[in-house]
Amino acid sequence: MTTRKVRIGSMEIGGGNPVAVQSMCSTKTKDVKKTVAQIRRLQEAGCEIIRCGIPDMESAAALSKIKKDIKIPLVADIHYDYKLALAAIEHGADKIRINPGNIGSVEKLEAVIKAAKKAGIAIRVGVNSGSLKENAAFKLTHRSGNGRADRMVASLMESLGFFEKNGFRDIVISLKSSDIITTIDAYKLAAKYTDCPMHIGITEAGTELGGIIKSSIGLGVLLYSGLGDTLRVSLTAEPEKEVYAAYRILGALNLRRRGVEIISCPTCARTEIDVIKLAHRVEEMTMNVDKSLKIAVMGCSVNGPGEAREADIGVAGGRGIGLIFKKGIIIKRVPKNDLLKVFGSELNKLLKSRD
Amino acid sequence: MTTRKVRIGSMEIGGGNPVAVQSMCSTKTKDVKKTVAQIRRLQEAGCEIIRCGIPDMESAAALSKIKKDIKIPLVADIHYDYKLALAAIEHGADKIRINPGNIGSVEKLEAVIKAAKKAGIAIRVGVNSGSLKENAAFKLTHRSGNGRADRMVASLMESLGFFEKNGFRDIVISLKSSDIITTIDAYKLAAKYTDCPMHIGITEAGTELGGIIKSSIGLGVLLYSGLGDTLRVSLTAEPEKEVYAAYRILGALNLRRRGVEIISCPTCARTEIDVIKLAHRVEEMTMNVDKSLKIAVMGCSVNGPGEAREADIGVAGGRGIGLIFKKGIIIKRVPKNDLLKVFGSELNKLLKSRD
Repeated sequence: MTTRKVRIGSMEIGGGNPVAVQSMCSTKTKDVKKTVAQIRRLQEAGCEIIRCGIPDMESAAALSKIKKDIKIPLVADIHYDYKLALAAIEHGADKIRINPGNIGSVEKLEAVIKAAKKAGIAIRVGVNSGSLKENAAFKLTHRSGNGRADRMVASLMESLGFFEKNGFRDIVISLKSSDIITTIDAYKLAAKYTDCPMHIGITEAGTELGGIIKSSIGLGVLLYSGLGDTLRVSLTAEPEKEVYAAYRILGALNLRRRGVEIISCPTCARTEIDVIKLAHRVEEMTMNVDKSLKIAVMGCSVNGPGEAREADIGVAGGRGIGLIFKKGIIIKRVPKNDLLKVFGSELNKLLKSRD
Repeated sequence: MTTRKVRIGSMEIGGGNPVAVQSMCSTKTKDVKKTVAQIRRLQEAGCEIIRCGIPDMESAAALSKIKKDIKIPLVADIHYDYKLALAAIEHGADKIRINPGNIGSVEKLEAVIKAAKKAGIAIRVGVNSGSLKENAAFKLTHRSGNGRADRMVASLMESLGFFEKNGFRDIVISLKSSDIITTIDAYKLAAKYTDCPMHIGITEAGTELGGIIKSSIGLGVLLYSGLGDTLRVSLTAEPEKEVYAAYRILGALNLRRRGVEIISCPTCARTEIDVIKLAHRVEEMTMNVDKSLKIAVMGCSVNGPGEAREADIGVAGGRGIGLIFKKGIIIKRVPKNDLLKVFGSELNKLLKSRD
């Protein structure tokens, strides 16, 4: 689906632009120093848009200071109090995220729209299945077969109608439920009604492992269906992991590539080294590599290098020794205990040659 | 899609049965003691069908001994040598998995089919994008728009034709490529041609994290589309993790539930405890719980218990103290340092009450 283009600071999303990767700070926004430090780490990791929670006026005021020291667009996350939205806009937010279901009266929403329009910034209209109006005025002509998803979309469309009536079109939408199926159904249905770019994500996804599984499925199904202009993988983990997982998801679907892809054989009866440990260590050592690289970790020396011919560099176990190979050709045989160290230095050489 | 029913030992897959969870041993199959021990751990974790690699005759002979000491159906994984298939059948395999692309001549395949038929066991026909015939005799009338996927399905259908001609119908199919999109396209296309139950999985998925992401997306898209009768999450990790991830994927799609679902808030400016660490510890302590249970780990005491009302039990942080709650009602306030210990004993009480 081709969505309309919306500008967020220096980024443009929608309209066929690559899916943009977002994250959210876990610091107290009013702690400018810590927040800036976290955002800088996230920038390094490939985060392209960053959101901060604005629970109070002090946090809103911090935005202008934070903005000075970061490179990526800054989004203010607002709940309940429209005055926080106005303050965030005043202090230079590049976009604000509101949930029309909890922002209060029509007059308050109008004030926020007016301020955003004057500042020339976008608004994310984030509908949440937990805070829906009972009876939205918008009547659906298509349905998803999922009552909750239908109600979310009706509620979204009613809000969008209000924004349009106020002449405001720089809108990004999101439809969140902690149930994956409802989330997917809602986005698919919404795509029949609006061309606003979609911010996709699974809310309250859970711990690192469980959250990654839920997010990979939910985002995977949506992206495979051609939906999603920007995404956040929401994890109970360091935000850098959210960014890392986001690029892995986009890479798996051949949509974007950043960093290392590790190909590793599942262990089998032929394995001659501890592939699990080795692959894990290689993954750790390459987590922050921003160049696009394929690395293989193979269990046996007989088939390893050959099977992993497409890998830029790889390691394979053998009886008593380890092999390092590039594009299927063995370049070094080293004692097993030195394998990781020698691999590390060969990898660094390879990375430098690509600078 | 409703597929035909196929029996694998004591299990029945296809025809509307719940999606069965498989794994594969990482032990040497001929090491009966280690293999049995691993399969027993996998049974405990919820594995319903187990596969072992058969690289030599000693491994094939081990099957009859292994079978005596396990409860779940045992599948023999065969490559290259049809004599290994015949030996595995002779030694009691409940199903064999072959790749028609590497098993050799038509006569050899015929001998395997005949032996399986006589033993009354099923065969998985596993097509792999890496070992396809150049020009399959089967002509496709539908196409996927993905040349590789089309060739995989043409190759599969040619093989299935051969099985049918030999009066053999107890077939499970798989179509594997390390590219997720190709895998999905191939299964979707195959569903237009055959009602054989589908074994789904992503091959060479990679390390734990990367592999879980790839598998979650690939399996997620297929299961969401209604495809898949049995699955393996293939990881470079302990096989128990494959089973754990499999149930997480099925649970996220509301298809099956086993074990604990953890709901945890992403950390934000309001968080009063280390939610990441706490959620991680709770996940570790509940990894082997086989009862279906929802557990919440929330950062703040103000909204925590209320927002996680649907959780059977949960913990939330507060200023200096921690809360334990059930179904939204606070049952204990404890010093932060005791939180995990007290939670553990409350959880045990809850589990015992459900015995």
